[in-house]
Amino acid sequence: MSQKVLVLPGDGIGPEIVAEAVRVLDCLRADFGLEVEVEHGLIGGAGYDHAGKPLPDDTLAMAREADAILLGAVGGPRYDKLARPLRPERGLLAIRSELGLFGNLRPAILYPQLADASALRPEVVSGLDIMIVRELTGGIYFGQPRGIRELPGGEREGFNTLVYRESEIERIGRLGFMTAQKRGGRLCSVDKANVLEVTELWREVMTGLAAEYPDVELSHMYVDNAAMQLVRSPKQFDVIVTENMFGDILSDCAAMLTGSIGMLPSASLDERGKGLYEPVHGSAPDIAGQGVANPLATILSLGMMLRYSLGRGDLADRVQQAVGQVLDQGLRTPDIQSAGTRSVSTGDMGNAVVEAL
Amino acid sequence: MSQKVLVLPGDGIGPEIVAEAVRVLDCLRADFGLEVEVEHGLIGGAGYDHAGKPLPDDTLAMAREADAILLGAVGGPRYDKLARPLRPERGLLAIRSELGLFGNLRPAILYPQLADASALRPEVVSGLDIMIVRELTGGIYFGQPRGIRELPGGEREGFNTLVYRESEIERIGRLGFMTAQKRGGRLCSVDKANVLEVTELWREVMTGLAAEYPDVELSHMYVDNAAMQLVRSPKQFDVIVTENMFGDILSDCAAMLTGSIGMLPSASLDERGKGLYEPVHGSAPDIAGQGVANPLATILSLGMMLRYSLGRGDLADRVQQAVGQVLDQGLRTPDIQSAGTRSVSTGDMGNAVVEAL
Ligand SMILES: CC(C)[C@H](C(=O)O)[C@@H](O)C(=O)O
Ligand SMILES: CC(C)[C@H](C(=O)O)[C@@H](O)C(=O)O
Repeated sequence: MSQKVLVLPGDGIGPEIVAEAVRVLDCLRADFGLEVEVEHGLIGGAGYDHAGKPLPDDTLAMAREADAILLGAVGGPRYDKLARPLRPERGLLAIRSELGLFGNLRPAILYPQLADASALRPEVVSGLDIMIVRELTGGIYFGQPRGIRELPGGEREGFNTLVYRESEIERIGRLGFMTAQKRGGRLCSVDKANVLEVTELWREVMTGLAAEYPDVELSHMYVDNAAMQLVRSPKQFDVIVTENMFGDILSDCAAMLTGSIGMLPSASLDERGKGLYEPVHGSAPDIAGQGVANPLATILSLGMMLRYSLGRGDLADRVQQAVGQVLDQGLRTPDIQSAGTRSVSTGDMGNAVVEAL
Repeated sequence: MSQKVLVLPGDGIGPEIVAEAVRVLDCLRADFGLEVEVEHGLIGGAGYDHAGKPLPDDTLAMAREADAILLGAVGGPRYDKLARPLRPERGLLAIRSELGLFGNLRPAILYPQLADASALRPEVVSGLDIMIVRELTGGIYFGQPRGIRELPGGEREGFNTLVYRESEIERIGRLGFMTAQKRGGRLCSVDKANVLEVTELWREVMTGLAAEYPDVELSHMYVDNAAMQLVRSPKQFDVIVTENMFGDILSDCAAMLTGSIGMLPSASLDERGKGLYEPVHGSAPDIAGQGVANPLATILSLGMMLRYSLGRGDLADRVQQAVGQVLDQGLRTPDIQSAGTRSVSTGDMGNAVVEAL
């Protein structure tokens, strides 16, 4: 009856950081009675190298069987010359879509130990704790028709379609409301309803849902204003729910407010709680293989997996506490280093978390 | 042979702040030999009140005749219940589109006198001076087909179309390159070419143009990364060129980095240098009529008009210097006030600029 976890290291620093998260996972299996089977697969550039496409068939088959997936990161300069459909990030888009992972949870948390890392003034960001709920399998990322066509006369034109149906909006909306219920009870829905019909419908559906969640306070904000407010006073937000493209932009903006994206995990969930978990940061090919990458975002992604897919919120809490402890001990990979802290390698950091557990 | 300036105060604080800019304009006509005819018109909520639509026919006719347009701001709670096509902001979208004002220049400048206002650490933003060149008459704002339709089964679906043809991209691209030539010589084109075909074409066209501007260094950045980099180290940018929706989001984000959007002007240009000039901030209905609004963004918008549409860069310089002087004198409207400065009204601020001239 044990659950299955698929591990997809990917490219760049992916394998290094995932290895540390797997050590944490092994520790939980050995010492905390976590019963999971672990398999490994290839995705991104590694998938292309192995099978000629960024989401190989065997990887997809294993992913369908798994209860949860831990992903490192994809992409690297070696693959930049490939035709777009073969590029590493297409593997990521494909697995999201194929598995129906519509609900992307992206926390932006400022760790008090890392307050110095932010480009914002301490009083603006201290204690920051926002959750962005991004729709991940719809909108302009996947909308049809799309392409580049030749117009009469020979000029070319590119076109993409932003499209959402009510049920898609409702589904992500409910995830937003339920997330707010478990947190501060405030949900800000971000749209551009003054210009885009799609988000007019978005706003209408969100407003309709509000009656079912009387304990959540719903507000609406235009996306341009949301980008401003994130910079001006980010702590005004509890949970933000938004569509795919806006969520891509705003979640990266929110992540960077903390100054330490090497610390930020994410979850992408389907309708039954199956999920893909990955750090917010990228594959950082420039530092790959040097043992300097920060594994904490991946370890915290494992924490989210324990909570959302494996039903082990207790172990998720332990992992989070362990990460807090190693920060308290002053251990830092180079990306989050500051005066008076101790520089450690990727492996040392993984060790330290395992020991703290 | 004198040129025509159309003044459109709009709603909220629009009339107050435009009145001060008009006093500056009158001063330039009286004392600096500026030869312009000035007309007034209605737009936004004021247009709706007057003629039942946010861009009345007579306003549009005057706008077509004018060489340059000075706009205050549009919108207010009184109009929030109107059907969307009648709302104030639709007047703004319509005038941009009808006049072909495709080239939106949005500077984000941190005035040294106002460095305290930013939410970012002083070292991250001191000396900030970015120009965002936003495409303003294409993309998803105006793309067809668009709307909300009923699917078989009764569910509704919203759809919008992001579309650009090569000539539209080339036109805004050239404006970006030319703007970079007059500044630091660096142009960053922002797209999402890893996901959207439209911006794949965008990137291709930008890359093609680069050969014609060997003195400009072109780079490309994905929009999510651009949002991060604006927060992380905004001074890395000189000129950013991007499509309409991305430009809406990034320019507001960049504006807020300065912490004083009451200071930021904008220009929207057609192919022959005719332009509409307006502050970046909104109509602020909450403070309308109280004489506390900051007129400097509108006065600086007049400065941009002098430079880009009226061929009077000399007077534009003078206006900018005058604004610098009043800041040096410690005069501040409430929105930009800080310890040790003197709080003044909208009218006092306008007076001070006229006197500094
Ligand atoms: C790599 C890219 C396709 C992806 C996205 O745009 O969704 C990434 O930016 C992300 O946010 O996970
Ligand atoms: C009011 C709105 C339609 C407009 C836009 O989205 O272009 C505004 O946000 C702007 O940036 O000028």
